Amino acid sequence: MTAIAPGLAAAAARPIGVFDSGVGGLTVLRALRERLPAESFLYLGDTARLPYGTKSEHTVVRYALQAADALVARDIKCLVIACNTASAVALPAMRERYADCPVIGVIGPGARAACAASVSGRIAVLATEATVRGGAYQRAILELRPDAQVTSLACGMFVALAEEGWTEGPIALQVAQRYLERLGTGPTLDVDTLVLGCTHFPALAQVIAQAAGPGVQIVDSAATAAATVEEELAARGLLLAAGSGGPGGRMHFLATDGPERFAGVGGRFLGAPLSVDDVELVDI
Amino acid sequence: MTAIAPGLAAAAARPIGVFDSGVGGLTVLRALRERLPAESFLYLGDTARLPYGTKSEHTVVRYALQAADALVARDIKCLVIACNTASAVALPAMRERYADCPVIGVIGPGARAACAASVSGRIAVLATEATVRGGAYQRAILELRPDAQVTSLACGMFVALAEEGWTEGPIALQVAQRYLERLGTGPTLDVDTLVLGCTHFPALAQVIAQAAGPGVQIVDSAATAAATVEEELAARGLLLAAGSGGPGGRMHFLATDGPERFAGVGGRFLGAPLSVDDVELVDI
Repeated sequence: MTAIAPGLAAAAARPIGVFDSGVGGLTVLRALRERLPAESFLYLGDTARLPYGTKSEHTVVRYALQAADALVARDIKCLVIACNTASAVALPAMRERYADCPVIGVIGPGARAACAASVSGRIAVLATEATVRGGAYQRAILELRPDAQVTSLACGMFVALAEEGWTEGPIALQVAQRYLERLGTGPTLDVDTLVLGCTHFPALAQVIAQAAGPGVQIVDSAATAAATVEEELAARGLLLAAGSGGPGGRMHFLATDGPERFAGVGGRFLGAPLSVDDVELVDI
Repeated sequence: MTAIAPGLAAAAARPIGVFDSGVGGLTVLRALRERLPAESFLYLGDTARLPYGTKSEHTVVRYALQAADALVARDIKCLVIACNTASAVALPAMRERYADCPVIGVIGPGARAACAASVSGRIAVLATEATVRGGAYQRAILELRPDAQVTSLACGMFVALAEEGWTEGPIALQVAQRYLERLGTGPTLDVDTLVLGCTHFPALAQVIAQAAGPGVQIVDSAATAAATVEEELAARGLLLAAGSGGPGGRMHFLATDGPERFAGVGGRFLGAPLSVDDVELVDI
């Protein structure tokens, strides 16, 4: 059990804020809860305005700041941007705006996971149109590993498949094959690592792995992001250790539209059933 | 050539406003231009906040009214709601708000087309989640044909396929088959008419027809909506006849986000190339 200075006890008891454009970020919340079981969480899904992945940079920044404002106003101790698109384009604006609240995105952690997994340095990032266009993953990977060869693929159909729940079977597999055929014409891909650069994509990890074939690592940023959050909180003395008798895994959800749909679809991403009573409708 | 009373000439020269959540409504604009070649058009796509099809009724009404306000403020002579979802839930609110501007949705015309095409009265509506939930097609068809048996199917993946441009080939066909298998277990469907109740779906008409098999009529609301607009304008003396020397097919486009993407994807739906210079970015 990590000791917390008395003055920090109240500050540490505050929830961790998690933001996503919709329900996909619940895969990141899932990883956070597994790694940090003593913490409580406040999750906001901007379901009225999703998806962010097809919007312009200007609009994503504007929407993401409005959403983050709503979380910061509820006294969170740190802010996790679970949305890859928002992480890719809005992180600098957020860090400037919330000087007292650490902001952790998923691009940096995803890039670290990719560099750790890749032997050849040939890495492909599967993401939304907006994330690909912004090039943030490419930059983050090349910063860590300047010799890497990074390809980015916009895979918009994966979002629809995950939302529809069609995450296995021939249709999902053929969609994955059609996207991945751009990564090599031979029997094996020209990359050894695929980064799932959208929070919806881990739901399709199995068919993506099948389409990619053996010898290709599939990484996502959820677990690495959770580790980054732990380090950041520990460095500030804000971490609640397991068994510390804190709020212990409590979650509260905010959605800008359709709490019923949020609860229904969200459970698939969180990996646990979600009651509509836990979802609060907010206008941001 | 229809005679226009002198006092009405200026009023008739105003553009027809067309609203959709994105680019799908360009299929309706295409039908309008074919039927009404002398008219000019002002199209607004709320691309920042699309899709409407997964949002709650409350949010769709709010967004649709904001978008319609922006068109009405630009002095249109009638307003066509090309978006099925907005037509399904926001039409009464619009008709109340714009007493002086006729508002034409696509649900009524789509229902008329379905009733005209169906022999058996067994009709299925393929639409977005929000349109299906609202039940507007079902009500409109039953009003015209009380003995009809109407089934509604939410087909969210069709939107993604159309946006991605994957409108033919094995993936599109299997997606259509997977949705349509809910309409009958035998070699033929239990319906004789399918209504394409989302402006994205006409792009997939061919694979939907292939999945449905012979003997099934596929109807969409675009052509019937254009006929309705013609009748409405004629009744008010606001119709420009072909060859009347009017603004003749001129189009101007407004988008709430991403003019480049609008022009790029939009051309597929309009059936004609679209230049980014014709697309004006607006904040509504």
